[in-house]
Amino acid sequence: MVCTLHIHERPELNNPVLIEGLPGIGFVANIAALHLIRELKAKLFAELHSSAFQDFAITTEQGKTNSPINEFYYYKGQHAERDLIILYGNTQALTTMGQYELCGRVLDVAQDFGCKYMITLGGLRREEKITTPKLYCAASGREALKDARNMGAEILGGQIFGIAGLLVALGKLRGFKGFCLLAETTGFYPDAVAAHLTLKPICEMLGLNVNLSQLDVAAEATRKILESFGLLEAPSEDRRKEGSGFRGLV
Amino acid sequence: MVCTLHIHERPELNNPVLIEGLPGIGFVANIAALHLIRELKAKLFAELHSSAFQDFAITTEQGKTNSPINEFYYYKGQHAERDLIILYGNTQALTTMGQYELCGRVLDVAQDFGCKYMITLGGLRREEKITTPKLYCAASGREALKDARNMGAEILGGQIFGIAGLLVALGKLRGFKGFCLLAETTGFYPDAVAAHLTLKPICEMLGLNVNLSQLDVAAEATRKILESFGLLEAPSEDRRKEGSGFRGLV
Amino acid sequence: MVCTLHIHERPELNNPVLIEGLPGIGFVANIAALHLIRELKAKLFAELHSSAFQDFAITTEQGKTNSPINEFYYYKGQHAERDLIILYGNTQALTTMGQYELCGRVLDVAQDFGCKYMITLGGLRREEKITTPKLYCAASGREALKDARNMGAEILGGQIFGIAGLLVALGKLRGFKGFCLLAETTGFYPDAVAAHLTLKPICEMLGLNVNLSQLDVAAEATRKILESFGLLEAPSEDRRKEGSGFRGLV
Amino acid sequence: MVCTLHIHERPELNNPVLIEGLPGIGFVANIAALHLIRELKAKLFAELHSSAFQDFAITTEQGKTNSPINEFYYYKGQHAERDLIILYGNTQALTTMGQYELCGRVLDVAQDFGCKYMITLGGLRREEKITTPKLYCAASGREALKDARNMGAEILGGQIFGIAGLLVALGKLRGFKGFCLLAETTGFYPDAVAAHLTLKPICEMLGLNVNLSQLDVAAEATRKILESFGLLEAPSEDRRKEGSGFRGLV
Repeated sequence: MVCTLHIHERPELNNPVLIEGLPGIGFVANIAALHLIRELKAKLFAELHSSAFQDFAITTEQGKTNSPINEFYYYKGQHAERDLIILYGNTQALTTMGQYELCGRVLDVAQDFGCKYMITLGGLRREEKITTPKLYCAASGREALKDARNMGAEILGGQIFGIAGLLVALGKLRGFKGFCLLAETTGFYPDAVAAHLTLKPICEMLGLNVNLSQLDVAAEATRKILESFGLLEAPSEDRRKEGSGFRGLV
Repeated sequence: MVCTLHIHERPELNNPVLIEGLPGIGFVANIAALHLIRELKAKLFAELHSSAFQDFAITTEQGKTNSPINEFYYYKGQHAERDLIILYGNTQALTTMGQYELCGRVLDVAQDFGCKYMITLGGLRREEKITTPKLYCAASGREALKDARNMGAEILGGQIFGIAGLLVALGKLRGFKGFCLLAETTGFYPDAVAAHLTLKPICEMLGLNVNLSQLDVAAEATRKILESFGLLEAPSEDRRKEGSGFRGLV
Repeated sequence: MVCTLHIHERPELNNPVLIEGLPGIGFVANIAALHLIRELKAKLFAELHSSAFQDFAITTEQGKTNSPINEFYYYKGQHAERDLIILYGNTQALTTMGQYELCGRVLDVAQDFGCKYMITLGGLRREEKITTPKLYCAASGREALKDARNMGAEILGGQIFGIAGLLVALGKLRGFKGFCLLAETTGFYPDAVAAHLTLKPICEMLGLNVNLSQLDVAAEATRKILESFGLLEAPSEDRRKEGSGFRGLV
Repeated sequence: MVCTLHIHERPELNNPVLIEGLPGIGFVANIAALHLIRELKAKLFAELHSSAFQDFAITTEQGKTNSPINEFYYYKGQHAERDLIILYGNTQALTTMGQYELCGRVLDVAQDFGCKYMITLGGLRREEKITTPKLYCAASGREALKDARNMGAEILGGQIFGIAGLLVALGKLRGFKGFCLLAETTGFYPDAVAAHLTLKPICEMLGLNVNLSQLDVAAEATRKILESFGLLEAPSEDRRKEGSGFRGLV
């Protein structure tokens, strides 16, 4: 199992916060990360490929091929804004072992650029109709939990599948602090309302000056990107047996 | 497949006995180990994570995240008591290869701290109602078998799945002596009676001064820990295809 | 996961083009590669085995055993012809991770012999009857896309499974240019018409002086080779669960 | 994936022949190897464990634990007898990758002790009633095929699953010569008649002075060993999904 990391630039960051934005339930994290990248004009500085990603090429409307990828963007905060490292991509790893290695490499990058705090995002799928979606959280420890609770998030019980949970838990073992923030969603993809719900308090906490009125644009862009990648379709019977396409937050 | 071992303290132990207490059928080993740790105030000295553990975070009632883990505790015996290394945790590895590597690392730790003898515990599932549960055993060799037989355990035929069997068998290849002790259980989780059945003769053999009257407390604590970890639920259909949640002793 | 590479000869090649010809849908690439090898009298210079290939031996009509294999052939162009590296074989890797490693090793070989451009081939399965099969393409970038479009190929949307897609996408990360060329086929094995459709414009583009009138002979040879290897049979139920026999281009 | 090899003794062997005798269809190879070991009083000189073997312990009637294992025995021929290396064990590897690594390690040992020729054994399952079972063969090349054909074996078409096929095919890549010899069997375990059918011409070819009248004893011993190891039972539904218990020769 091999992750390949390409670092294109080595930005000087001041105590940056890692924001995880890979695809999952409701594509909440994915939309939020894309929106941040666009609004803040965050810069791509590293790319990660894993042999636990899908073994296919994805074609764009313009006839170009891409491979499943995770990307790292950075943003140097203005005035009172915190510096950011944003993890964005079109997939998580397909296997348990692959998820562990992916998290390990993401933490390597975060440490390498001075990050000690992370926020992971996700959706919390609800079968029933949601009138007023709520936020839920779980944290590395007392301090980070307080940060999350201050956002009005309730404490989550049970397991958190996927990278959003694993990254906080494995990060904790390396001394990272942080929390996982989940917004209720029916899972209709991609859920701009749930993305808004997570992004608003995060921007407040980190002093980020971001206009959130265009989140539906990011959601639509996410939908188009994912669709052209074939990633919004139901996984085929065969694929489902092998791994799991996407594994979001239950 | 990578196991990560963190050693927090290097206790001086005198010919310690390794007691395996990971989750399995009836959570017999898990309850017994937790009880020993609490009663003897055994100290955590090492932690082990494996990419063959579940790729999720588990949240506590207090909103904190944890990852699947195996822990090593030590106890320095008083008077005639034997020194102990207790292996405790909330999971075994999910894959065959992961179980082999996990056993290898556990044996590394045991050797590193001077251990040459091990006792592994487990439940032996019975479909029918059990009026007087019995003990069964299998051992690395003649000497250890005698130790187990002296406890009133009958000889077990067939395979012993999971870490309880594999650890004795692979330990034998490295010169370890020891035995596997299994108590009959209907598998209703977690079985304090079966745990008592195994723990009583072990305490006698090792001269351990442990009050066993509170084993139901350890069983209840095990139930709560496991429940909050989501580990008492039936594994989902998907999970069952991939690996096996828990693999205890059949 | 280990690939073993044996290099028998180190030819001096002048800016060679890699042509991928492993089995897939309609065996389009396989037929085309075999035909090129035979017509151009291309020479075998390297062999690759992977532990992600099938774990069986294949017997020939003459009672000899062979193992699943990928082979590299070279051709030094005459006059205006381009030099070639042809990847030929009787299988792709059975697992996702195996496909990634296989592609990595193929790219290693290509780089080692000065290759910077690749053409991968495949079939595009159609359920309905095909009266006039069309060509489709996806490319590493603008320049290669133009090369493919000049062949009359339309732009393909969606994912490209198998080595034909992955090789272009992973090659792009290492600076390779190139495209994937897919011919429509009903998937009735092996499809000489579809092979002809891909090979004709490739020969024109690369200035290759190849007689294409005998492609049905290569198709029949492919059929016989594959049949004696047991590779034309439907994969057994068990096999299908494990991996995927062949994974061609959908 | 790790194989662990323990070499207990380094015998001086004169151009030994490797005879493969792991469990498979009809346990033909397993019976034959056990019989040779017993009759020739062959000596154990190396042991091999793999993390791709089953992750359980197997208990003997005497209450001792063993792990799945492959063993190497040697025999120094008397007079005109050839020296032998006999590969014996209670399992093959459970995964494709594991089979490849296992074969690699077996070939390492064989090369290390000067072996250049191998004979692998197996059963060829027939659905219908067999009145006069026949022998089939496949070989590394012309010379070895002649050896096998001289035994009256017919040429086999198709694939040879399991170690019997893979070992000859992978050995060929390293310069080994040899053949695979398969006896027809209904697969009723273990088939002493089929074992006799393979062993008789092998003893003649290698000048081995072995009494074959007691093969039913070896078959019965094989049955008992395997039964106590639980290896004659049908693999559970779960296991079958993961790998394949035993994979013999189809």
